[in-house]
Amino acid sequence: MRKVFQEELTQVGDDLIEISKLVHEAITKATTSFEGADVDLAQDVIAADARIDFLQNSLDERAIDILALQGPVASDLRMIVGSLRMSASLERMGDLARHVAQLARLRYPATVIPASLTQTFKAMAQHDIEITAKVIELLETRDLEVARDILKINIAVDDLHLSVFKAIAAPEWNESPSTTVDVALASRYFERFADHGVSVARKVTYLVTGEWQPEGF
Amino acid sequence: MRKVFQEELTQVGDDLIEISKLVHEAITKATTSFEGADVDLAQDVIAADARIDFLQNSLDERAIDILALQGPVASDLRMIVGSLRMSASLERMGDLARHVAQLARLRYPATVIPASLTQTFKAMAQHDIEITAKVIELLETRDLEVARDILKINIAVDDLHLSVFKAIAAPEWNESPSTTVDVALASRYFERFADHGVSVARKVTYLVTGEWQPEGF
Repeated sequence: MRKVFQEELTQVGDDLIEISKLVHEAITKATTSFEGADVDLAQDVIAADARIDFLQNSLDERAIDILALQGPVASDLRMIVGSLRMSASLERMGDLARHVAQLARLRYPATVIPASLTQTFKAMAQHDIEITAKVIELLETRDLEVARDILKINIAVDDLHLSVFKAIAAPEWNESPSTTVDVALASRYFERFADHGVSVARKVTYLVTGEWQPEGF
Repeated sequence: MRKVFQEELTQVGDDLIEISKLVHEAITKATTSFEGADVDLAQDVIAADARIDFLQNSLDERAIDILALQGPVASDLRMIVGSLRMSASLERMGDLARHVAQLARLRYPATVIPASLTQTFKAMAQHDIEITAKVIELLETRDLEVARDILKINIAVDDLHLSVFKAIAAPEWNESPSTTVDVALASRYFERFADHGVSVARKVTYLVTGEWQPEGF
């Protein structure tokens, strides 16, 4: 019984890693479609999001079955409950990658972002991709150094997000209202994506250390 | 033991209702501060959000204790896990009410929304307030008619949200880029707020019927 239980716990961890890898693929493809106005790739991301949602549901069902059949306590219990929270964050990251792809599809054949902000968005997207790679590494290794990296990258994303809003408010901004809205929403999607990565990092840190650090760490 | 367990389950349900009432107060005050550029009221909402976050954490800890000490199964287990999900939705609704209040504070003494969209935002905000009132009623009564009402109101919110984006894209729109961004973000906050109300409605429906209805019901 004990051996089965450990296998099931490991399976939940593997499910989280699998979902993270799909999220990494989603944000990478979404970014490429967004930067290059590639409508086919955008369509791929939008279609693939259903798979992430399905895996999240499967993981949640598996976690609930473990709770019902094994009655885990202490750190095992917290790991299961933490997995439910992390799967929700990962699922939301998949949604946000889909939103980025949907913007690319909506504005095709034009690109969403005006030339003046191309580099800013490229940096923000690269940070999000890196955060997702770090999330995978963190789930695989539980190395808290990786969790700290995620927090640092998130600060860089927040700074870029603020710089987008400053650019929009500057006197020289002369884009159309629709472009202005697209830029603001896209920036918010990338920023929220990073926030969810931080949620996962904080949750893993909590599971490893047993201490909640609401102020960042 | 069994009696204590039932009391603890009831307590989790009561906690959810208490958080919902705070969210109702938050969105009501946030809306008033937003419509009337009332910076003191906005400040109240921003400060009060910490209380919602605290109660969510307490509820989650209580739920985890119940899982550890009582080992609930079947419908009791699903109710506990469902409560963890619902508390996350309610906490996020509190965040979004805070974001609305933060916009009001940022633009004070001006109002956030231009006159042409005042009525649209008033309607959207009223729908969000009504959704929150229905969430409280749903948690208190488990009446699935109320859950269906929430879905209907959410469709109205989505329609208003779309109409905001159409207004921004129309040739006669001549607001500043900053106002354009504020309008887009505010509309998204109200729309996401309603979505989380729908998540709670769907979760309660699932707990009552045992069936998941991903397409709405």
